[in-house]
Amino acid sequence: MPDTTLLECFPSPGDEAFVVEHVNEEFTSVCPVTGHPDFGAITVRFSPRGAKDGGVCVELKSLKLYFQSFRNEGIYYEAVTNTVRDHMVEAMRPRWLQVVTHWRGRGGIRSVIRADHGDVPAEWRGKG
Amino acid sequence: MPDTTLLECFPSPGDEAFVVEHVNEEFTSVCPVTGHPDFGAITVRFSPRGAKDGGVCVELKSLKLYFQSFRNEGIYYEAVTNTVRDHMVEAMRPRWLQVVTHWRGRGGIRSVIRADHGDVPAEWRGKG
Amino acid sequence: MPDTTLLECFPSPGDEAFVVEHVNEEFTSVCPVTGHPDFGAITVRFSPRGAKDGGVCVELKSLKLYFQSFRNEGIYYEAVTNTVRDHMVEAMRPRWLQVVTHWRGRGGIRSVIRADHGDVPAEWRGKG
Amino acid sequence: MPDTTLLECFPSPGDEAFVVEHVNEEFTSVCPVTGHPDFGAITVRFSPRGAKDGGVCVELKSLKLYFQSFRNEGIYYEAVTNTVRDHMVEAMRPRWLQVVTHWRGRGGIRSVIRADHGDVPAEWRGKG
Amino acid sequence: MPDTTLLECFPSPGDEAFVVEHVNEEFTSVCPVTGHPDFGAITVRFSPRGAKDGGVCVELKSLKLYFQSFRNEGIYYEAVTNTVRDHMVEAMRPRWLQVVTHWRGRGGIRSVIRADHGDVPAEWRGKG
Amino acid sequence: MPDTTLLECFPSPGDEAFVVEHVNEEFTSVCPVTGHPDFGAITVRFSPRGAKDGGVCVELKSLKLYFQSFRNEGIYYEAVTNTVRDHMVEAMRPRWLQVVTHWRGRGGIRSVIRADHGDVPAEWRGKG
Amino acid sequence: MPDTTLLECFPSPGDEAFVVEHVNEEFTSVCPVTGHPDFGAITVRFSPRGAKDGGVCVELKSLKLYFQSFRNEGIYYEAVTNTVRDHMVEAMRPRWLQVVTHWRGRGGIRSVIRADHGDVPAEWRGKG
Amino acid sequence: MPDTTLLECFPSPGDEAFVVEHVNEEFTSVCPVTGHPDFGAITVRFSPRGAKDGGVCVELKSLKLYFQSFRNEGIYYEAVTNTVRDHMVEAMRPRWLQVVTHWRGRGGIRSVIRADHGDVPAEWRGKG
Amino acid sequence: MPDTTLLECFPSPGDEAFVVEHVNEEFTSVCPVTGHPDFGAITVRFSPRGAKDGGVCVELKSLKLYFQSFRNEGIYYEAVTNTVRDHMVEAMRPRWLQVVTHWRGRGGIRSVIRADHGDVPAEWRGKG
Amino acid sequence: MPDTTLLECFPSPGDEAFVVEHVNEEFTSVCPVTGHPDFGAITVRFSPRGAKDGGVCVELKSLKLYFQSFRNEGIYYEAVTNTVRDHMVEAMRPRWLQVVTHWRGRGGIRSVIRADHGDVPAEWRGKG
Repeated sequence: MPDTTLLECFPSPGDEAFVVEHVNEEFTSVCPVTGHPDFGAITVRFSPRGAKDGGVCVELKSLKLYFQSFRNEGIYYEAVTNTVRDHMVEAMRPRWLQVVTHWRGRGGIRSVIRADHGDVPAEWRGKG
Repeated sequence: MPDTTLLECFPSPGDEAFVVEHVNEEFTSVCPVTGHPDFGAITVRFSPRGAKDGGVCVELKSLKLYFQSFRNEGIYYEAVTNTVRDHMVEAMRPRWLQVVTHWRGRGGIRSVIRADHGDVPAEWRGKG
Repeated sequence: MPDTTLLECFPSPGDEAFVVEHVNEEFTSVCPVTGHPDFGAITVRFSPRGAKDGGVCVELKSLKLYFQSFRNEGIYYEAVTNTVRDHMVEAMRPRWLQVVTHWRGRGGIRSVIRADHGDVPAEWRGKG
Repeated sequence: MPDTTLLECFPSPGDEAFVVEHVNEEFTSVCPVTGHPDFGAITVRFSPRGAKDGGVCVELKSLKLYFQSFRNEGIYYEAVTNTVRDHMVEAMRPRWLQVVTHWRGRGGIRSVIRADHGDVPAEWRGKG
Repeated sequence: MPDTTLLECFPSPGDEAFVVEHVNEEFTSVCPVTGHPDFGAITVRFSPRGAKDGGVCVELKSLKLYFQSFRNEGIYYEAVTNTVRDHMVEAMRPRWLQVVTHWRGRGGIRSVIRADHGDVPAEWRGKG
Repeated sequence: MPDTTLLECFPSPGDEAFVVEHVNEEFTSVCPVTGHPDFGAITVRFSPRGAKDGGVCVELKSLKLYFQSFRNEGIYYEAVTNTVRDHMVEAMRPRWLQVVTHWRGRGGIRSVIRADHGDVPAEWRGKG
Repeated sequence: MPDTTLLECFPSPGDEAFVVEHVNEEFTSVCPVTGHPDFGAITVRFSPRGAKDGGVCVELKSLKLYFQSFRNEGIYYEAVTNTVRDHMVEAMRPRWLQVVTHWRGRGGIRSVIRADHGDVPAEWRGKG
Repeated sequence: MPDTTLLECFPSPGDEAFVVEHVNEEFTSVCPVTGHPDFGAITVRFSPRGAKDGGVCVELKSLKLYFQSFRNEGIYYEAVTNTVRDHMVEAMRPRWLQVVTHWRGRGGIRSVIRADHGDVPAEWRGKG
Repeated sequence: MPDTTLLECFPSPGDEAFVVEHVNEEFTSVCPVTGHPDFGAITVRFSPRGAKDGGVCVELKSLKLYFQSFRNEGIYYEAVTNTVRDHMVEAMRPRWLQVVTHWRGRGGIRSVIRADHGDVPAEWRGKG
Repeated sequence: MPDTTLLECFPSPGDEAFVVEHVNEEFTSVCPVTGHPDFGAITVRFSPRGAKDGGVCVELKSLKLYFQSFRNEGIYYEAVTNTVRDHMVEAMRPRWLQVVTHWRGRGGIRSVIRADHGDVPAEWRGKG
C-alpha cells in the first residue's frame, strides 16, 4: 500500500540549488472501475532545499519500492498523480516538485496527467 | 446519441491545480452531407477545480462510451468539436478545457478543429 | 471556374470562438505562361464569427469542388493564393483567415505563398 | 550575364500584403579564383507592394532564366547573394526582400550567406 | 578517489569571454546502497575568467582521469553531480559552470541531475 | 603555422549589412599534451562592414589554407577557438564574428567551444 | 450487412497478368463479445485473370461501401479476414488473392490476421 | 493463476489455412528470485486447423485475462514462454504456434525468448 | 487523349544493355465512376534493345506531355497502368518494361497497381 | 568536350581484386531538346585488373575535370550514362565497371539510368 514512510531520503549533498529528474517507464496500478491493470510511465522532478536547511533527496531503491506498492492498488490516474506528488512533498519538503504520468491507454484512450508543487526553478524552465 | 449524462465524474483527488489530457485516436462519426463515415482523433485537455470547490474529473470508461455514442451520428467536424467542449464543460465545470480534433480527410482534404473554454493554465502553456 | 458561389456554408455550431484548419494536398491548376499543370498543397485556416452574429463555416464537399474548379485555370501561384483568400473571406466574413500554398516546383524552383486576413487569434498563435 | 532586365514581373494580384518564397536547389556559378564550378541552393523571400501602389511579383520562368544566367559567371558567393538581392529589389521595389544562399562546399568548407532588404513583415516573423 | 587536485588547468587563451562544453558518455560509479555499477553521461559547461584575471581551463586528459577516479566510488547520483560541480569550481573559479548527469537507470528508473554555479552567460542562453 | 597573413580578403560586395557562415568539418590539429591528432568541425560566422567603410570578406581558398596550417600545431581546443577568432577579427575588422568548434572526442570526451566578437546582428538572431 | 453482391467489378483492362493492392486504414467493425468497436487497416492484394478469360477487377467505390457494411457488424477479427477473402474470391475468381488485417488493439493486445487464396504470383514475391 | 481453462475458444471461421498474430505489450509477472516485477511484450502466432477438423481460435478477452493471471506469479522468463506455448497448444491444437517474449530488462540485461510448436506455415515464412 | 504517337523516341545511345527508370509524382486523371480527380505517382522502368537492333529510348519532354494527356481522362487505375505499359511497349519494343502506379486514395482506400512486360533484367533484380 | 583523354590513370596498387566507388553529387549538363541545364549525381564503380596485368585506376582530379567537361554539353541522360561507361572502360579496361546517374527531374519527372560493363564482382554483389 503506497505510503510516505516507504520513501527513504538522504541529506542533500550541498547547499546550492540543483534539480533532479527520475523517470520510471514500468509503472502499473489497477483501474478502480474495471479491475483491469493500467500501465504507464511516471516522471518526478524536484529541487531539494540546501543541506544546511535540512534538504533531502529521495533514495532510488526506496523510490522503486514505493512505485511498486501501487501494483495492486485500485486507483484513478488522477489520484496516482496527486498522491505521488503529496507523498513526495511530505517526505522531502522540496523547493519545487512536479509529477507527470503518461498512461498507455484503455478503451482506445491514452492520457497524460501533470501536477505541480511550487514554482519551476530558473534552471529547469523550458524543460519537461 | 451524445449526451452530457453519459459522462460520469468522480471528485478531484485534491485541492491543488493539475492538468489532465485524454487522447482518443479511434473517433468516428458520420458526415451529415454524404452519409459516409468520418475518422479522426479527439484530444480533451482540462484542469479541474479543487476538491473543496466541488471539482470533478471525467471517468475514463464513461468517456469512452460517450465518444462511442457519436459512431452513427450525422454531424459536422465543427459541431463534434463544439459539442464535446460544451458537454464536458457542463459535466465538469473545469477551470479550463480544450478540445482538438484531427480528421483523416475526405475528398483529399484533412482538417483540424480547436475549441477552448477558459484560459490555458500556466502549467500547460506552450504545450499541445 | 473558381467562384465564391461554389462555397456553401453552414451556421457556426456555437457562439464561442474556435479555429478550423483544412489542408488539401492535391491542388492543381495550370501555369498561365507555359500552359503546363502546377501541383501543390493549399491550407486554409480561419476562425468563424459566433452563431449569434451570423458566423458560418465552409462545408467540406463544396470546398473540395471549389478547389477542383481551379483544375484547368491558367493562373499564377500568387493569384491562386489571393483569390482563395478573397473568395473565402467574402463567403464567410470570418474573424480571421489565412491561406498558405506550397508548390512542388517548376523549372527547379519550388515556392510558398502566404496571405492573411485579420489578426491571428490567441488560440492559434505559434501554430502553422 | 545576370541582369535586372532578365526579370519579368506581373502586377501583384491584390492590395493586401502577402509573402512569397521561391527556392532553387539547382543554382550553379563559377569560382572567380579557381575557375571550378560552385553548386548551391538560393532562396528568395519577398512581400510585394499592393497592386494600387504598383506592386509586382517576379514571373517564375524569367526567374529561372535569370538564375541560369549565372551558370558561367566567375563570381564570389557573397557577390551572388548581394547581386541577386540588388537586382530583385530594383525589379520589384518590394516592401521586404531576403536572399539566402547555401553552398555545397569547396575545399571542405560549406557556406551560407544571407542578405536582407527592409524589415521582415509580421506575417513571416519566426519563419525561414 | 575523486579529488580537485586531479584536475590540471592551463591558462585561458585570451581575455574575452567564451564558453566550453565537455561531454563524457562513458561515466561509471557504484551505487552506495546496492553496490551495483551505475552508468551515465556527464556534461560540464563553463565560461572561464579572462587570462589577465588568472582565468584557467581544465586540461582534457586530467579531466578524463578525474572522471575515471569515480569508477569504484560508492556515491549517489546527486552527490556525483554536486561533487563534480564543486571540484571544478574550486579548480577553475570560472565565471559560470554547469554539470548535467544522465543515468541509464537502475530498478527501471532513469535519472537526470543538473547543478549550476553562477548565471548562464549571454552567449549560451537557450542552449543545453 | 597559423598566421593572420594567410587570410586573404576581398572587398565586401556592397554597403548594406549581410551575414556569412563558413563551416569546415575537416579541421585537425594536435593535442599539446599527448601529441595525438584532434579532429573537429569549425564554424565561422561574420557580418562585414560595408564596402564604403572598407569592409572585406575572407577569400575561401585562403581560409582553407589557413585552417590547414593548424594540422601539425600542438594546441588546445580553447586556444584554436580563440586564435581563429582573433586572427579573423584582425584580418577583417567585421561588425560581428563568432567561432564555434565541435571536437570529435578524445578519451571518451567530446567538446564544443564558442567565442564571440561583437553583438549578434538582428538578421542572424535565433540562428546558429 | 457484408455481402458479395455489394462488390461491383469491371472487366480486367488486358490479358497480361498484373497485380493490384488496395489498403483501407479506416476499417471498423464491432467486437461480438464486448460490443465495443474495433478499428484496423485492411489490405487486399490480387492478380485478376486476363480479360479474355473473363477476368475482372473490383470497383473502388463499391469496395468502400462493402468495407463500410462491416461498421455495425458483431464479428471476430478472424472472421472479418476470412469473410473478405471468400467474398472477394467469389466476386472476382482471381488468379491470386490475399487479405491482411492489422487491428489497433483491445485490452492491450494488437493483432494481425492473414488469409490467402492461390499462390503469390512471381511479380509480387518478396512484397507485402 | 495461469491455467488452460482461462482460454476460451471459438470455431475457426473457415476451412482454408490462415495465420493469426496477437501482441500484448503490457505483460508483467514477478521475478521468482528477487520478488521484483518483470515487464515485457508477449507475441503469440498460430495457424488454426480448418473448421471441419474442429479447428478453433482463442477469444481475445479470455486471452487478456489469461495474460493478466501471470501478474502476481513468481516465474522465470523461460517458464512464462514455455507455459504459454503449452497452454495455448492444449487449448487450440493448432497446426502451428509460436510464442516470443521480449523483456525490458533487469540489472542492465534485456532478453528475448522464443518457443515453437509445429512447422512455420508457408504464408508466414520470413516473418516475425 | 493518351496515344502512343505522343511518345517520341531517340535511338539508344549504345549496344550494351542498360536500364532506365522515370518517376512522375504529379500524375492525375479522372475517376470514371465519380468524375472526381485522382492523384498518384507513376514509375516506368525499361531496358531498351541495343542501337544496332533499332533500340530506342523515350524522350522526356514527350513523356511529360504523354502523362499530361491523361489529365482529363475518365479512366480506372488499372486501365491507366495497363495502357501506359501497352503504349510504351508499342513505342519502344524494349527488352523489358514495368509500370507501377501509387494512388493517394479515394474513400479512404489507397492503391498500388503493377504491370510487367518481359523478364526483369539481371542488372535490376532486387530493385523496385 | 568530354573525351577519354581527359581521364588520367595510375597503376593499380596491387594484384588482388578490389572495388572502387566514386560519387559526384554535382554533375550538370544541358538538355539537348530544351537547352535547359540538367542536374544530377553520377556514381562510378569499378574493379581494376591487377598491377601485373597492367591494371589502372582513374586519378581523381582528372575525373573531376572530365565530369566538368559535360557542363555545357547538350546530351541526353541515357547518353551521359553510356558515354561515361564507354570512356572509362576505354581508359581503364577494368574487370568490371558500372555507372549510375540520378537526375533531379525536369517537367515533374525524375530519372535513374544504369549501365554496366562486365559482371558485378562477388565483393560488391547486393550493393548499389
